[in-house]
Amino acid sequence: MSGTLRVACVQLTSRADKAANLEKAEQLVARAAATGAHVVVLPEKWNAIGTPDELHAAAETLEGGESVHAMSGWARQHGVALVGGSITERREGREKLSNTSLVYDSEGSLTGLYRKIHMFDVEVGGHVYRESDAEEPGEEPVVLDVEGWPTGLTVCYDVRFPELYRILALQGAELVTVPAHFTLYTGKDHWELLLRARAVENQYYVAAAAQIGETLPGRLSYGRSLIADPWGVVLAVAPDEETVISAELDRRRLEDVRAKLPSLASRQASAYRWPTPA
Amino acid sequence: MSGTLRVACVQLTSRADKAANLEKAEQLVARAAATGAHVVVLPEKWNAIGTPDELHAAAETLEGGESVHAMSGWARQHGVALVGGSITERREGREKLSNTSLVYDSEGSLTGLYRKIHMFDVEVGGHVYRESDAEEPGEEPVVLDVEGWPTGLTVCYDVRFPELYRILALQGAELVTVPAHFTLYTGKDHWELLLRARAVENQYYVAAAAQIGETLPGRLSYGRSLIADPWGVVLAVAPDEETVISAELDRRRLEDVRAKLPSLASRQASAYRWPTPA
Repeated sequence: MSGTLRVACVQLTSRADKAANLEKAEQLVARAAATGAHVVVLPEKWNAIGTPDELHAAAETLEGGESVHAMSGWARQHGVALVGGSITERREGREKLSNTSLVYDSEGSLTGLYRKIHMFDVEVGGHVYRESDAEEPGEEPVVLDVEGWPTGLTVCYDVRFPELYRILALQGAELVTVPAHFTLYTGKDHWELLLRARAVENQYYVAAAAQIGETLPGRLSYGRSLIADPWGVVLAVAPDEETVISAELDRRRLEDVRAKLPSLASRQASAYRWPTPA
Repeated sequence: MSGTLRVACVQLTSRADKAANLEKAEQLVARAAATGAHVVVLPEKWNAIGTPDELHAAAETLEGGESVHAMSGWARQHGVALVGGSITERREGREKLSNTSLVYDSEGSLTGLYRKIHMFDVEVGGHVYRESDAEEPGEEPVVLDVEGWPTGLTVCYDVRFPELYRILALQGAELVTVPAHFTLYTGKDHWELLLRARAVENQYYVAAAAQIGETLPGRLSYGRSLIADPWGVVLAVAPDEETVISAELDRRRLEDVRAKLPSLASRQASAYRWPTPA
């Protein structure tokens, strides 16, 4: 496993116009690769944000679709691994879509995927969000190898569920990606807090790529893409614009934190009386 | 269940001189009660901090001991419920001590207790801490009624273990107490972060009473006792001195947060593939 890894996060403002989103993302992935990044992370629903109808129209299967082909091509062209934020996925025989994070290696091959487990059905800041109108939850936490680093995949609202992030740590994750489309109202109080807490309590790196600005009419996204280290130090954070951030991850840093403050090893699993099912 | 509850946290500098600690605590409990508090929370090991030998000398059984009698008397005298931070408890037939949080009702009766589950065996800020030299871990999460509020009990290092705090939420906690003796080195980066994250992700109130200053020779405690609401807003925080803070908890606030952003209800327990044991 490599000792260091440069990770970049792309921050953008995606809307319903898929072609426009693809064009902007292509430019920002190129900028991200130019930072020397080995891994580039896109935000949630980077290729299309809109109504349920617009999401259905933009959805792609894993076999085809312009976004899927574009991600594979960008990874190969720049020689970077790509955590493709998420796209809405259409699956054979299913009425609802999935919110799916696809991962490509530096040769452009799909190496794994994660379907968002927690649906954003809430009322915040005077707006109602019902992700489950168009989408259904995934069922499986995923950790896979990305450029030699065991990497856990999550999406946005998942960050409110510490059990998922703990399970990823127990499965060996040393980096967790969080593509997101966080609201301004919740983001101002919870975005950095929860991302840093996940990094600290699980002693791994967290890389969060966010939507910024007016992604839906009258609704503002929080932005502030960030990369945090296993002590919770924010290594990079994005200003409020479409941009790219990057930081270098260092496995020795992670090992040092885990050796000196061995909270993962100090778990007392026999004392955890989970209700059934947990 | 009552709609509002005033909670106070006592912050002090405890050392090995038990009589001196008792005298200071008595004064600060009186100050806390004078804020109109229904519940007073003391810090971790409020009655004695020291070497393993000093802790053994200061330890008490549940039946006797001056600290146990004092807590019962203070609760009755002031008509407040008391979450007695923690004391080192000596148990029949056991070589090691427990780090035990005792709870008294406003008539001075012991209503429940929690023994700290996670031992602080770490090396941080150039110092080694080995709590398990003198103490053994507890085995059971505890939620009990405190003045009509279901209250979860934890101690200090526990705050790094989100599974414990989640279990308390699933057991119905609406308030969780965190008596603590946090180091300056870890506190500067993790104290407020983890306390607020536990409040946000579990949508309950958190009341944390801390040791402040030089509790052990050459070793500084972080202080900054705080009370956070279910959105993570810090309602009160202590300056760097021996003092008292208080805040009013409001059940309507908690219910509003849980109704609009129902993340506890949105858990997807069937997807959580815990290793065995979890």
